[in-house]
Amino acid sequence: MTVNRRFLLVRRPAGEPVEEDFALVEAPVPSPSAGGIVVRNHFASLDPAQRGWMDDAPSYMPPIRLGDPVRATTVGVVHASDNPDFHEGQWVMGLNALEDYSVAAPGGFTMPIDVAAVASPSNYLSALGAVGLTAYFGLLEVARPQPGETLLVSGAAGAVGSAVGQLGKIAGCRVVGIAGGAEKCRRLIENYGFDAAVDYKGKDHAALVAAIAEAAPDGANVVFENVGGPVLEAEVFNLALHARVVLCGLISEYNAPEKLGLRNLWQVLTRRATVHGFLIADYAHRFAEGGAQMAQWLGEGRLRADEDVQEGLENAYAAFMRLFSGANTGKLVLKIA
Amino acid sequence: MTVNRRFLLVRRPAGEPVEEDFALVEAPVPSPSAGGIVVRNHFASLDPAQRGWMDDAPSYMPPIRLGDPVRATTVGVVHASDNPDFHEGQWVMGLNALEDYSVAAPGGFTMPIDVAAVASPSNYLSALGAVGLTAYFGLLEVARPQPGETLLVSGAAGAVGSAVGQLGKIAGCRVVGIAGGAEKCRRLIENYGFDAAVDYKGKDHAALVAAIAEAAPDGANVVFENVGGPVLEAEVFNLALHARVVLCGLISEYNAPEKLGLRNLWQVLTRRATVHGFLIADYAHRFAEGGAQMAQWLGEGRLRADEDVQEGLENAYAAFMRLFSGANTGKLVLKIA
Repeated sequence: MTVNRRFLLVRRPAGEPVEEDFALVEAPVPSPSAGGIVVRNHFASLDPAQRGWMDDAPSYMPPIRLGDPVRATTVGVVHASDNPDFHEGQWVMGLNALEDYSVAAPGGFTMPIDVAAVASPSNYLSALGAVGLTAYFGLLEVARPQPGETLLVSGAAGAVGSAVGQLGKIAGCRVVGIAGGAEKCRRLIENYGFDAAVDYKGKDHAALVAAIAEAAPDGANVVFENVGGPVLEAEVFNLALHARVVLCGLISEYNAPEKLGLRNLWQVLTRRATVHGFLIADYAHRFAEGGAQMAQWLGEGRLRADEDVQEGLENAYAAFMRLFSGANTGKLVLKIA
Repeated sequence: MTVNRRFLLVRRPAGEPVEEDFALVEAPVPSPSAGGIVVRNHFASLDPAQRGWMDDAPSYMPPIRLGDPVRATTVGVVHASDNPDFHEGQWVMGLNALEDYSVAAPGGFTMPIDVAAVASPSNYLSALGAVGLTAYFGLLEVARPQPGETLLVSGAAGAVGSAVGQLGKIAGCRVVGIAGGAEKCRRLIENYGFDAAVDYKGKDHAALVAAIAEAAPDGANVVFENVGGPVLEAEVFNLALHARVVLCGLISEYNAPEKLGLRNLWQVLTRRATVHGFLIADYAHRFAEGGAQMAQWLGEGRLRADEDVQEGLENAYAAFMRLFSGANTGKLVLKIA
C-alpha cells in the first residue's frame, strides 16, 4: 500500500453521530518522527469512550481535534522505526487512530505484544486489553465483591459487562445482568453463566424496578454500571444497604442532548451507598498483573471473551454505530488489515 | 399543665409544606406505657430530615403517619416513669415528637443527658447532638480530610455546614463554604474561620462554577454536600481528581416535585470521584466518642455552635419553614417549655 486511509472527525456530533460527521480520506504513508515509529494498524478497538472524545467538553482526555482521525486503541505491526526498542515487523499495541498507518511518538503508550500466545491479535483489544482490565480492576479492586453478595451488571451483554459478570461468578457472587432483548438475556445465562437476566426493553420505571427486585430479592451489594439513565435510576431502588456502585460508563447518555444523570440521588444517601467514578487509566501500573490473571482464566476456560469483528476502514461509521444500537455481540473490533 | 398540645401531620405536603398540612390539637397528658416513661419536652430539633419523613416514599425510617405528631428529637425532663432506669425530674433526650409530652417506649433511643455540663440543654440538639456528630463522623470518618487539602462545604452557614467547616480547619484544610447571601458569607469567614465563601445567589451555572473555581483553584478534594440541586451540579465541575463527596443532605430537593439529582454524573466518573451516602445512624455505636471530642473542642473554644431558638409549639410551622427559606442562623431549635 502506498496510501494511508484515515477516518477523520470533521464535525462534532450533535447527539447521535451521523455519517457526515466523519470523512474517509487518503494521505501519504507517514514517516516516523524522531525516536518514534509508524504502526501498520491491523485491528482497532471501537468503544463508547470514543463518543465522549468527540465532544468539546471537559473530560479525562483532550477532545479529538476536528480534522484529526478518530482516536482508537489499535494493534498492528511496526512498519518503520526510528527507535532502537522497536523493530520492523514487531507486533505492538497503542493509542493510535482509525487509519491504516499511525505515527506513534516516543514516550507514548505503545507496547509490544506477544501474538503467539493468543488466538488472535485482537484479543489484546478485548479480554487482555482495556475491556478485560476494566472488568478486572473495576470489579475486583474497586467494588471488592464478597462470596454470597449479589452483583448487578448493566450493559451485561456488552464486552465489559459480560467479563464483569463472569468475574463476579469467579468471586462467588450471585450475578444478575441487565440487557436489552430476550436474545441478549439468553446469552447472559447460557454463554456467560449469569444467575439471572433482566430485559430492560419495554419496561417503564416501576416495571424495571420490580423486575430487578425479583431477580435480586436481597438487593444489590455491588452494581457495575455501564449504561446510566433509566437503567441506573431503576437500579438505585434496588441497592442493599452500604452497596458499592462502580460508575464505569454511561452509554445511554453519550448521545443524549439532555443528560438524565441520577435524579434519585436520595436513594444513594438513604442506603448509604458509595458511588465510585472509575477509569482504567488509574491502574496502568498494574496492567501486567491484571493481564496475567485474565490470560490464566481465559486459558483455563473460566472466562469466555467474544469478539464482534467488523471489516474495513470504509465501514468504520457503521461499525461504530453498532455500539449504540446494541447490535454488537461481544467486544466490537474493526479489522483494518 | 393538664393538656398535651400536639403538632400533627394531617396531610402529606405536595412540595413545600403549607400550614394546612398540620394541625395543633390538645389531648390529655399521657401516662407511661409498661416499662416506659413520659417526657416533658423542653426543646425540639427542627431538621431538614423531618421533611423527608413527611413523604410516603422509601427511606431509612417509616413515614410519619397522618394524624401523628411530627417526629422530632427532643430534650426534656422525665414527667412520669414506669422504668427503674429513669426517675421523675431527670433530663433526657430521645426521638419523640413536636408535642408537650411524649410517651417514650422502653428500648427506644431515650438516654440521660448532663445539663450541668452545658450552657443550655438545647446544646444536646446542636453541637453535642445529631448535628455535631453528623459533622464529626461525616467529615472525619467518611471523607478523612488530609492537611493541605481543599474542603468545599455547601449549606455552609447552616448547623451542620458551619460545624463541618470548623472541623475542616482543625484538620488542616483550606475550607471554602457555599451559602446564600452576603450576610451568611460574611459569617462564614468572621464567625467560623472559613478561608473563602461563595454566594450562590443570583449566579447561573457557569457563574457558580467559575466562582467556586476562583475560591478553590486546585479543585475540591473533599465536598461535604448538604444542599444538592444546582449547587451540587456546579461543585462537580470543581472536583479534584479522586475527590470524596459526602452526601449528607439534599435540602434543595426535599420540597421539589421534580428532582434534579445529579445530571453531570459524567464529571464524577472522569474525575474518579467517590460519592458516599451518609447517615449518622450508622455511627450510633460511637456517639460517646464523638460527643466527648466535640465537647472538648467546644470547651477549648475551637468550635463555635450557634443556635437559632424559636419559641412555642404554636409557632412550629413558621419555625420549621425557616429551614427552607434559609432564614435560620445556626441550629434551628424549637423551645417548647
